[in-house]
Parts: sequence; structure tokens; C-alpha cells
Amino acid sequence: MHLPNDVRVVEVGPRDGLQNEKDPLSVEQRVQLVNALARAGVSSVEVGSFVSPKWVPAMAASDEVFRKIERRPGTVYSALVPNERGLEGALESNVSEIAVFISASESFSKRNINCSIEESFERLKPVFDKAFKASIPVRGYLSCVAGCPYEGAISPAVVAELSRRLVETGCYEVSLGDTIGVATPPVVADVLDQVFSVVKVSKVAVHFHDTYGYALANVFQALQHGVSVVDSAIAGLGGCPYARGASGNLCTEDLVHFLQDLGINTGLDLDGLMATGNWVSEQLGRRSLAKVSAARARE
Amino acid sequence: MHLPNDVRVVEVGPRDGLQNEKDPLSVEQRVQLVNALARAGVSSVEVGSFVSPKWVPAMAASDEVFRKIERRPGTVYSALVPNERGLEGALESNVSEIAVFISASESFSKRNINCSIEESFERLKPVFDKAFKASIPVRGYLSCVAGCPYEGAISPAVVAELSRRLVETGCYEVSLGDTIGVATPPVVADVLDQVFSVVKVSKVAVHFHDTYGYALANVFQALQHGVSVVDSAIAGLGGCPYARGASGNLCTEDLVHFLQDLGINTGLDLDGLMATGNWVSEQLGRRSLAKVSAARARE
Repeated sequence: MHLPNDVRVVEVGPRDGLQNEKDPLSVEQRVQLVNALARAGVSSVEVGSFVSPKWVPAMAASDEVFRKIERRPGTVYSALVPNERGLEGALESNVSEIAVFISASESFSKRNINCSIEESFERLKPVFDKAFKASIPVRGYLSCVAGCPYEGAISPAVVAELSRRLVETGCYEVSLGDTIGVATPPVVADVLDQVFSVVKVSKVAVHFHDTYGYALANVFQALQHGVSVVDSAIAGLGGCPYARGASGNLCTEDLVHFLQDLGINTGLDLDGLMATGNWVSEQLGRRSLAKVSAARARE
Repeated sequence: MHLPNDVRVVEVGPRDGLQNEKDPLSVEQRVQLVNALARAGVSSVEVGSFVSPKWVPAMAASDEVFRKIERRPGTVYSALVPNERGLEGALESNVSEIAVFISASESFSKRNINCSIEESFERLKPVFDKAFKASIPVRGYLSCVAGCPYEGAISPAVVAELSRRLVETGCYEVSLGDTIGVATPPVVADVLDQVFSVVKVSKVAVHFHDTYGYALANVFQALQHGVSVVDSAIAGLGGCPYARGASGNLCTEDLVHFLQDLGINTGLDLDGLMATGNWVSEQLGRRSLAKVSAARARE
């Protein structure tokens, strides 16, 4: 059983975690969150997104958040960018890097961003061009890699081909997202086997949702395949706010605790993360989904 | 990746799950729970324990529960038995089988049942003898197989030797319990490798606690080692009732959903289990810890 010695955790809480909040955090709260995460050792944090506030009101004023955060040397502060206009906002906000988004499911692509997979590559072309000119690294999200709410199972061959194209187009890393939390370890193994036949393992990250509690089992499968970059959200942010306990993103605190128990170095301060997760959960008027925080609270 | 075709799920909710409740369920509620579980297809259910009600008040009147449950043909209704006196109660209650308890940690044994591991084998000798005379199968629980709250890590060699002795003494099955939820997949692999060097795989079950969210990852590891019997508790009963969200036993609904997604047959009715888990959680004035139930509730 071979596992990586080090894992880089990409913190997506302030963006992926908060973007669907009905009662969004204020700019000040979002700034505090990002600063606390960076102080706990997070080396990559997705701060916000440059999308229309009409579509994603919780991410409005991401430029202001970027302006107000402390910038720690070595920390990557990234933003999701859907199109050229978003890229301009991101560049003006002096982001460290951008992330772009492609779906592995045609139906999901059409319903979510109203264009085909092919059209979304087209739409992103000027984004890539201008980002490269500005020397800004681009991270690619590939969603629905294990299943789609409309189509069901997604072919690992399609995931591999789209991963290859994202890398070919210039993404320094592709994050494979199980958007609806349906992946199991054998599916993860299949997808990674196919992806690694065309993309280097060092260019692949995994992004699991913990809808059914499978996320850590899937992380462990990915680690055994050599993956050493894992996305997660502090306090498990991103769960559906209308169903208490229904979870979305893999919780950073539980991921880090798991990696530590596996003897894998993350460079992260678990106590600092738990405090941050508890703090942000309080701001949102709920409790953290972190199991390690609940367990420690009763010790 | 080789997985078993079928898994037997041993439902421990009515005993392991409920035994620490401060406000115990009534006999009627416990009877309803056991009946609902059996109707959902559970083939092995731990109904109660024959211990002093002074020590475990929530398990008082287990004899009454046994008297009032429907007995479905083919369903195993078991009871935990700590000593000869407990066995007598169990036999009078016409249990299908009994379970006995040994710890893999000396310190845990002394603090929990006030005797050494060796003494606990001595204490169980007459229990085994009389159970065999009555043709009652005996299941052995071995606790703390991955770690102990007092000693830390437990040697897999010790776990293997105690498993061997339990089988030699006459247990038809040994359930390896990660009592405090600290096992990780590599630890599970180590323990099982050593256990299987002296005990047949068909005689081994696993019993994981989900304290830190590792239980399904550990189940998957055990399945890959050929284990095909897994303990779990409906609604994740057995969490600490004083810390909301702090979990104890692996949740049956999530286990069954995971096994189904892996294409493994359990013979269980997930809808019936979810309804039962929601019902018993209501009786206890809390919400079910089942992630699949929370996810389905928002669909």
C-alpha cells in the first residue's frame, strides 16, 4: 500500500462552500475566513468567483474581498472565472491564479452553464489566452466525473479525454469533481486509471462531495493511485442549507485529520482549522459538520 | 479489486446503539424497533443484553423485549451476555444466539469490566460450556482492535492471537471492533492480515465506529480482504448523546447504501431501514445520522 508523503489541500470553502448560501456572509466575514484559513497553513484558497451577482449573489463583491485580505507570501489566492469578463475582474483583483469549469456531462453543462461541453471550451479560449499573457496559472475543474444528476453514470473515457484537453489547453492541474457524491472507490479507481493513461498523476487533483459519506473512502483510493492534491471545504461548507446534516463538500478538518492519521504531511494546523470551521459555522448560524470537531468537543 | 458478492449486516442498534442512552426507550419502543428492523430484512439483530440494570439501565427488561418481539423465521435475535447469570437470563428468553465480549487492551478490560483479558476468558468459560450444551451459537466481540483510549495503538499480533483463542473456544464468528473509531484502512489491512494468518476469513466480522468518519473507508478495506460480515447500528445510534453530531456506530442505512452502490447484495430494504432510522431518531428526540436519509429528504 503506497501513499504519498505529502498532500496539498486546496481549500474551496470560501467559494464552492459559500456560493449557494441564501444569507450570504458579509465581505468582512469572508475576509476573516480567508485570513484565518491562511493562518492555519492553507496554501491554496479559493477566495471567490467573478460571476454575475445576479446568478450567484453570495459571491458578489469578490473584488472587495480580494482587496481586503492579507496576502501571505506563498499562499495561493484563487478565483473561479466563467468567462472573459470574469477574467478581467480577477486580473484587476490581483488573483494568484484562476480556476475554470468544464462538465463531463453534456446535460449538466447545458443546464448549469447553458452551453455544450464543446461550447464551454470555446468560451474559455480567450480566458486561457489572456491568463497566460498575464502569467496567471489556470486550474481546471472537471465536474460530474463519476455521475450526473440527469445522465447517471459518466464514461471514464470521456473524463480522461476532457482531462487531457484541459491539460493540453494549459491547465497546470485538473481537479476531478464528483459533484453529486456518487463515486465509490472502484469508480474512482476506474476513472483514475483512464485519466492517468493520458495525463500525468502530478497534474490531477480530486474533489469529492460527501453526500453519502463516501468521500474519505474515495480519497483513500485516490491516494493509493498517487494523487496528492485534494480539494475540501472548511466545516463541510456547501451542504444544502435547507436540510440539516445533508453534506456537500468533503470537510477540510476531517480530511486533514485523516491524512495526519495516515502519516501524510499536510503542513496544516488542525486546531486552527477546527477553530476556523467552528467560527464560520457560528456566523452561518449552524454547527460545523466536522466529525473531528464534534469528537474533540466531548473529550 | 475483488469484493464479496454478498454481505451480512449485523444490526447492533437496539443493544450497542441504545445501551448508553440517558433517557432509555421503553420496552414497547424497543420491541417496535426490533420488529421494524426484521421487517426491513435484517437477518441478525442484537436485541438487548443480560447485564445488571444497575450498570446498564437502558438495557433493563431485555427479557421482556425478547418476550414481546415477533420472531420471524430465519432471523437471528441475539443478546450480549457478560457472565453465567446473564446466560441464564438469555436462555430463559429463548435467544437465537449470544454474544460475548473480550477486549484486546488490558487497560480497557480492567477499566470496562474490571478484570484482565485472561480473567475475562476464565469468566466466560462456563458461559461457553452452557451455551454449547443448549446448542446456542456464540459470537465473540473483540474490542479495541485498532486502538485503546488508555494504551493507544494495539498490536495486531495480540488481536490475531485473541481472535484465534475466541474461535478455538467456540465462537462461530469474531467481530473485530474499533471501539474508538481510530482505525484507518492501512491499520485495518495490518490487523486483518495478521488475523487471517490464524483464523479463517469466513469467521471474521468487522465493527467500525464512525467517530472521525473513517468507517466506510475501513469497511471498503475489509471487503477487499474478503470480509463479508459487517456490524452497524440503525440511524448511527450509539453516538454520544451529549454532543450533537458526534457519531458512534457506523450507520446501517449508509452502510447498506454503500454496499448497494458497490453492487453487493445485502438482502435489505433500504427504504424500510431509512424509515426505521427516522422513526427511532424521533423517539429519541434527535435526527438520524444517516447521510443517505438526509440526502433523500432534500430530493
